[in-house]
Formats: sequence, structure tokens, C-alpha cells
Amino acid sequence: MNNPTITPYRQEQLTLEQTMLKMGGLCEAQLTDAITALETFDRDVAARVIANDPAIDRLEHDIEHQVTDIIAKRAPVPLVLRGIMGAMRIAGDLERIGDLAKNIAKRLTTLDAVAGQPKLVKGISRMADIAIAQLKTVLDAYSQGNVELAKSVWRRDEELDNLYNSVFRELLTYMMEDPRTISYCTHLLFCAKNIERIGDHCTNIAEIVTYIVTGVELGDGRPKGDHTSETSIEPTHDSV
Amino acid sequence: MNNPTITPYRQEQLTLEQTMLKMGGLCEAQLTDAITALETFDRDVAARVIANDPAIDRLEHDIEHQVTDIIAKRAPVPLVLRGIMGAMRIAGDLERIGDLAKNIAKRLTTLDAVAGQPKLVKGISRMADIAIAQLKTVLDAYSQGNVELAKSVWRRDEELDNLYNSVFRELLTYMMEDPRTISYCTHLLFCAKNIERIGDHCTNIAEIVTYIVTGVELGDGRPKGDHTSETSIEPTHDSV
Repeated sequence: MNNPTITPYRQEQLTLEQTMLKMGGLCEAQLTDAITALETFDRDVAARVIANDPAIDRLEHDIEHQVTDIIAKRAPVPLVLRGIMGAMRIAGDLERIGDLAKNIAKRLTTLDAVAGQPKLVKGISRMADIAIAQLKTVLDAYSQGNVELAKSVWRRDEELDNLYNSVFRELLTYMMEDPRTISYCTHLLFCAKNIERIGDHCTNIAEIVTYIVTGVELGDGRPKGDHTSETSIEPTHDSV
Repeated sequence: MNNPTITPYRQEQLTLEQTMLKMGGLCEAQLTDAITALETFDRDVAARVIANDPAIDRLEHDIEHQVTDIIAKRAPVPLVLRGIMGAMRIAGDLERIGDLAKNIAKRLTTLDAVAGQPKLVKGISRMADIAIAQLKTVLDAYSQGNVELAKSVWRRDEELDNLYNSVFRELLTYMMEDPRTISYCTHLLFCAKNIERIGDHCTNIAEIVTYIVTGVELGDGRPKGDHTSETSIEPTHDSV
């Protein structure tokens, strides 16, 4: 619905913001559904997530076109330019979040086929709760232009990284103890990694929101907590 | 070195292209070094890759600033705008390629600590050869504005996906057969996945190059070959 009291140029900027928030909302729904599918072994929900992914890609293209159109037609002043270039970069992160959610859903095809053990998914559920909350918060930060909210997302990512470290160790330990779970746990490892990456994309968005609002970039001082690339678990005697 | 016979505006565009190609060359070197480190268990090379990564991030920032400056100062016509927005999107893919190479290098810290088996790395080396070739080719396609070359990268990605599928199965089988390799093979699985992702970023860049040159986007008709999210390996009787 267009508002007659605002200029067409301002309307274009609002439409861009709305498209981005719509894209963000869809990513949130996709991630929530992908995790529900994983928790309940629900293939129908997984299939829906996979089917919905192209809609996210189309919204990213919409945003790129809107941004290019505005720049070409309006030659925006630097402040506006920062906002619309930022929107395009955020759309790139959202597209990846959508992709990672779809990838979790795709793994269901396999996880359903083997005897899944719900206890193994618990850590991943906790990770997903945080990731979904982070995504919600950073979208709020964008729509409100709230830098403090953005910074809280940036800071909270370490919690997700720490949880990922413990899920990684836990799954490796299960695999050692019972090699029949190797295939299953490997897929869960990739799901956990995907959620950890979603957290990284939320912090990227938080950095972009901060830049849009203040013109200043958040430094590289964020505490990094993913140490799994340096993690090694030795098998116990029982397991070999 | 600036050329006195071209306008300052054209010079800005050339500088942007040069920065992007410099970033691409650095990514290529980082990926080559990360794989060498993995093949030879060379921690010094791995440490160098990790230390070099911030240089790639700085180049991405440079590119974003150059793009924003050109747009703000010059209000480019649509054809030029397409080129410089494309450069910014390519820089995003290159930054991720650099990150994935760094992540491979980081895993060396662990792989070195356990008894690595060189035969397990062979499939990954073959994948890396293709990924490095794809990156070289797509950067050539960019600098030459060669759409046919870009399309060849787009089409060849399936080969990398197929190789990834077989490496994935191979590593899972090793883990089943000898649970002592679980921790080691898990890290190799993530390395393989990283290289497969690098291939995806090369096809993204190929799509952007095609769009820059022709104004038309490559469709979604690319053959997709990564089926590992649907792969399950059952343990043999010997292994449990």
C-alpha cells in the first residue's frame, strides 16, 4: 500500500526495506521449519522447506534490482546510498541463511532412513533456538535502526560457537562408541555446522546494520568461539 | 601506474578491476597453499595461510569503498553500474573462498596431531586441483569479459560435485572400518565440503561475469551434483 504523502523516491526506499524484511521473515520460518523437521523426522515439513527456497532466491534478485534501479535513477546522497548498499549486502547473508536451512532439510531424507536417536538432536535444538533468536533480533535491529540491539547479536554469537564446540565433541564421542551411528552423526555434524554458520551470518548482518546507522564499522574484536577445527577426540578402549 | 591518456573516472574503474583481480590472485594462492599444507602436513604453510587471511578481508573492504565512492561521485550509467555492482558481488564470493581456504588450514593443527594417512587425502587433492583450475578460469573470464569461459566454469562444477560425493562415501567407509580414524576423517569431510563450496562460489562468480557482460542472468538450469546430504553408508559386519 503506497502512502500518498511521501515522495516516490522515499517510497522506493521503503519498498526495499519491506522486501528485505519479508526475505528475513521467510528465512526465519524456513529455519524454524527445518529444525522442526529434524526434531520430529517429518519429511513433509522438510519437503516444504526445500520447495520454499527458490522464493528466497527470488527476493534476493528483487532486492538487487531495486538497489540498482534506485542508484541509476536517483543518484542517492551518501547516507541513502549506505542504506541501500547495506540492504543488498544483508540480502546476500539472508540468501545464505536460507540455503543453510534448506541443506538441513535435505539431510532429513537420510536421517529418516536410519534409526535416529532423538537424544543426539538435543544439542542441535539448543543451537537452533539461539540461531533463530539471533536472526529475529538482528532483523528487529535493522527495522528499528537499533545499534545496541545489533551489537547484542554480535556479542552473543560466542554462545552459539561454544555450544557448537560441545555438540561437535559429543557427536564425535557417539561415533567412537557406536560406529553404527557414524553415517547419522556425520549428517548431524553438518547440520550443527550449518547452524553455527547461520550465527556467523547474523553477526555479519549486525555489522552491516551498525554501519548503515552509524557509518562506522564494528571492528574485528568479536570473541570467536568455534574451535572445532582444532578439536580431536581420541577413541576410548571400548570403542575400537 | 596511472595512464595519463585515460580519464580519472575510467581510471577509477580500472583500479576497481585491478583490486578485484589482486584479491582473486590472493585467494588462488591461499587455496593452493592450504591444500599443500594438508597434503604435506606442513604447519608452517598452514600458519601462513591463516596469517594472510585478513589481507583478503581488507581487499573486500577496499572494493566496497571504491564501489560506493564511484557511485556517489559519478552516478554511473546502467552499463557501468552493472560492472561495478558485479565487482562488489564477486568480492563477496572471493572473501568466502578465502575464508574456506583458511578453515582448511586451521584443521591442520589437529590433523598433524594424529597419525594422518596420506591415501585419505588423495580424493581431496583431486577436488582441490579442479577447484583451483575453476578459480583461475573464472578470474580469466572476468578480466577478459569472456562469457564462454564463464559458462565453462558453470558447467564444470558438476564434476567437482561428483568427486565430492565419492570422497564423502570413501571417508565414511574408512570411519566404519576403523573407528580410530573418525576424528581425522571428520576433519577431512569438512575440508572436502569446503572445497565443494569453493566450487559453488566459482559458479556464482561465473554467473555474475555473464551478467556483467551480457546483462542477462544464467538460469537455474545448472546440473547439481552434490547428493551427499542424501548419502547413507551402512557399516559392514567387520566394522561393528
